[in-house]
Amino acid sequence: MSEPLKIAIAGLGTVGMGLLKLLQDNSTTISQRCGREIVVTAVCSRDRTKDRGVDLGSITWYDNAARMASEADAQVIVELIGGSDGIALETCMNALQAGRNVVTANKALLAHHGMTLARAAKNSGASVHYEAAVAGGIPIIKSLREGLSANNIQRICGILNGTSNYIMTRMRNESLSFEAVLKDAQDLGYAEADPIFDVNGVDAAHKLAILASLAFGTEINFDAIHIEGIGNISLSDVEYANELGFRIKLLGIAQRTETGIEQRVHPCLIPASSIMANVEFAYNAVEVTCDFAETVIHVGPGAGAGPTASAVIADLVDIARGHTLPVFNVPGDKLAALPTVPMNEHLGKYFIRLKVTDHSGVLAQITAILSKHDVSVESVLQRAQDPGKPVPLVMVVHETREHRMNAALLEISALDSVMSEPHLIRIELH
Amino acid sequence: MSEPLKIAIAGLGTVGMGLLKLLQDNSTTISQRCGREIVVTAVCSRDRTKDRGVDLGSITWYDNAARMASEADAQVIVELIGGSDGIALETCMNALQAGRNVVTANKALLAHHGMTLARAAKNSGASVHYEAAVAGGIPIIKSLREGLSANNIQRICGILNGTSNYIMTRMRNESLSFEAVLKDAQDLGYAEADPIFDVNGVDAAHKLAILASLAFGTEINFDAIHIEGIGNISLSDVEYANELGFRIKLLGIAQRTETGIEQRVHPCLIPASSIMANVEFAYNAVEVTCDFAETVIHVGPGAGAGPTASAVIADLVDIARGHTLPVFNVPGDKLAALPTVPMNEHLGKYFIRLKVTDHSGVLAQITAILSKHDVSVESVLQRAQDPGKPVPLVMVVHETREHRMNAALLEISALDSVMSEPHLIRIELH
Repeated sequence: MSEPLKIAIAGLGTVGMGLLKLLQDNSTTISQRCGREIVVTAVCSRDRTKDRGVDLGSITWYDNAARMASEADAQVIVELIGGSDGIALETCMNALQAGRNVVTANKALLAHHGMTLARAAKNSGASVHYEAAVAGGIPIIKSLREGLSANNIQRICGILNGTSNYIMTRMRNESLSFEAVLKDAQDLGYAEADPIFDVNGVDAAHKLAILASLAFGTEINFDAIHIEGIGNISLSDVEYANELGFRIKLLGIAQRTETGIEQRVHPCLIPASSIMANVEFAYNAVEVTCDFAETVIHVGPGAGAGPTASAVIADLVDIARGHTLPVFNVPGDKLAALPTVPMNEHLGKYFIRLKVTDHSGVLAQITAILSKHDVSVESVLQRAQDPGKPVPLVMVVHETREHRMNAALLEISALDSVMSEPHLIRIELH
Repeated sequence: MSEPLKIAIAGLGTVGMGLLKLLQDNSTTISQRCGREIVVTAVCSRDRTKDRGVDLGSITWYDNAARMASEADAQVIVELIGGSDGIALETCMNALQAGRNVVTANKALLAHHGMTLARAAKNSGASVHYEAAVAGGIPIIKSLREGLSANNIQRICGILNGTSNYIMTRMRNESLSFEAVLKDAQDLGYAEADPIFDVNGVDAAHKLAILASLAFGTEINFDAIHIEGIGNISLSDVEYANELGFRIKLLGIAQRTETGIEQRVHPCLIPASSIMANVEFAYNAVEVTCDFAETVIHVGPGAGAGPTASAVIADLVDIARGHTLPVFNVPGDKLAALPTVPMNEHLGKYFIRLKVTDHSGVLAQITAILSKHDVSVESVLQRAQDPGKPVPLVMVVHETREHRMNAALLEISALDSVMSEPHLIRIELH
């Protein structure tokens, strides 16, 4: 057997401890598969006195992760600190500048500084691995960089945030409001105390930026992503969607169009019988549409100590086997900067929910405005309620450009008979 | 850029031609990702005069694939001939003995001679790659060997035969018999003229043998697989399953139990809301249950020129990048020979369909026999029909050992009130 692979771990939170446990529990299997041992030589964590239930006696402790990245007796620095800047960035840059490989679970860092890391890696001949940064235990980065490498990829569509998916699942299953599920999820420890990046779409967008770069061979472009979260989804949206044969999911979608790359994160209605619609609770999924391999879907746990540690070790096994690749799969100078398609050029079907006065002629007024903007109605749901009270009006419209949709809704919202801001959710059929 | 990777292709059928087309269409992308070109230097096919719509002028033609494997100016021999023995085996062995890497889509060959190939590869330092042999375009071999390499795998469960899945899907959707769908599928070209290995479970078993070896680090043991096909599934089985909240799928399952490895291919009832139940038509799926990464499911096209060629090229890209591994992931001498669990020790729930006389006391007789064998009934479906005529009786029983189930059914089938052979289908809940 070859020399052991020495690694240093920055950050001993849930994932860091999961990593130590997995390395310990499955050491024989992992060594057999690598042809060598993986040995932790150094760690960095704020509190070295805390009892972690793992023997860390023979490991060198550092108080400063960035210093450890430069100095530790290790060929690989595993960055599990988190955050898009500051010490996480400094740690990774120091490691790369010292010619050490980096393994990271940090999607925010990659989304914002991926190109900087790639350049540093290229300069020193080191590599950056990040299977754990997207979709937890699902080996989606490997599928994109290796398993599907023969293909031009046309579209990536993912359920990339477990908290949002958990909330949407329970809203539908239990007829609960967004706020009620979120509070319960926080009480149960399924959602963070501060879940803002989970529910506002930013976490999913970090992951989408990485997937889009790999899929299309483009530079990471987080700023080009149109981002909406699930905070505005009401229980009635969920119920109307159900009635129409759909489920609502927060999706991250990146696709090639004739004019460039569309990158967007927002709630979507998708057909209830699709695989993606049946990915429930905190599970993630990534659907990859290819020119030759057709559509391949990966489903699995999106977070958690075990799945994330599994992904980190997959990267370590690759390094131990000597299997490294350019950071974004092709050399940095081969990455294209394709044009971004603005969201108002998006072509799709839409679900619209309005509250209107219960008078004759209202539907005629609204459909006339839609028609004026070339938006054509596919179906209408209007339920009888108490006479004289405002009634909900739900419509699905055929494929149209988003700017037409917006122009029509602006005009509709100005009608005296329309009692609240029109609510719009995009529909994804495939 | 490095020297091109030279390959020779044995077999220019649907997949072989798909491979040539994909290499031609996506050559720029593939070269960028490999860091070198992939060049076809030789081919072998029975009919060299046939117009294939691809320029093969500069390629050396061979009439004998085994000779090409020894002699061609190529570092890789791609075997797309098929068949578990004969010329396919000879071609692969010649290639390996000459120190050339083999890429093959041939599951029958691997299932029967995988260990022989692995030994030959080890002796000459060559490698064998077979992403295309299992589940078409889905990169499941890569997930097992690399993406999930940190894990001990407890269970593999796959929809591994597209034809069977297509038939089961259409039987349910259109209320058709097995025979009617099979005939239609043959007319439409979805099923082979001789679909025997597809519908009798043998094709799925070939693939399961490969997956089980990778999952558990064991020697391939095709002969240990319990195999049943879908030929005995009637439309009423499908309809009763539906009524009970299940769908019927042909599954290949390999799992670790306390006493050894269980490997089986047979029709199963699975919950209708599960991801696997929603994998329809010719799509395949593989669910991998791990100790750390939890459950990861891969879904995609199980066959076809494009998906299979995509998988073959993924292997070529790995070789071009210098990323090779032992044939069954760990060195051959590290593969274990774990005990096989016989099918009558299987522990599971069962669906039973009987035809009984319409007399009082019949259900009591049957449940008494089940109870005597410690088999406990979970639910019963009995529909009123024409008085005096035999009536169908459907039962679901709680988890039990298969030998108990068989002993009970033997006794039940001997009852005067039981009009036909009891029909049993296993239930998989997870």
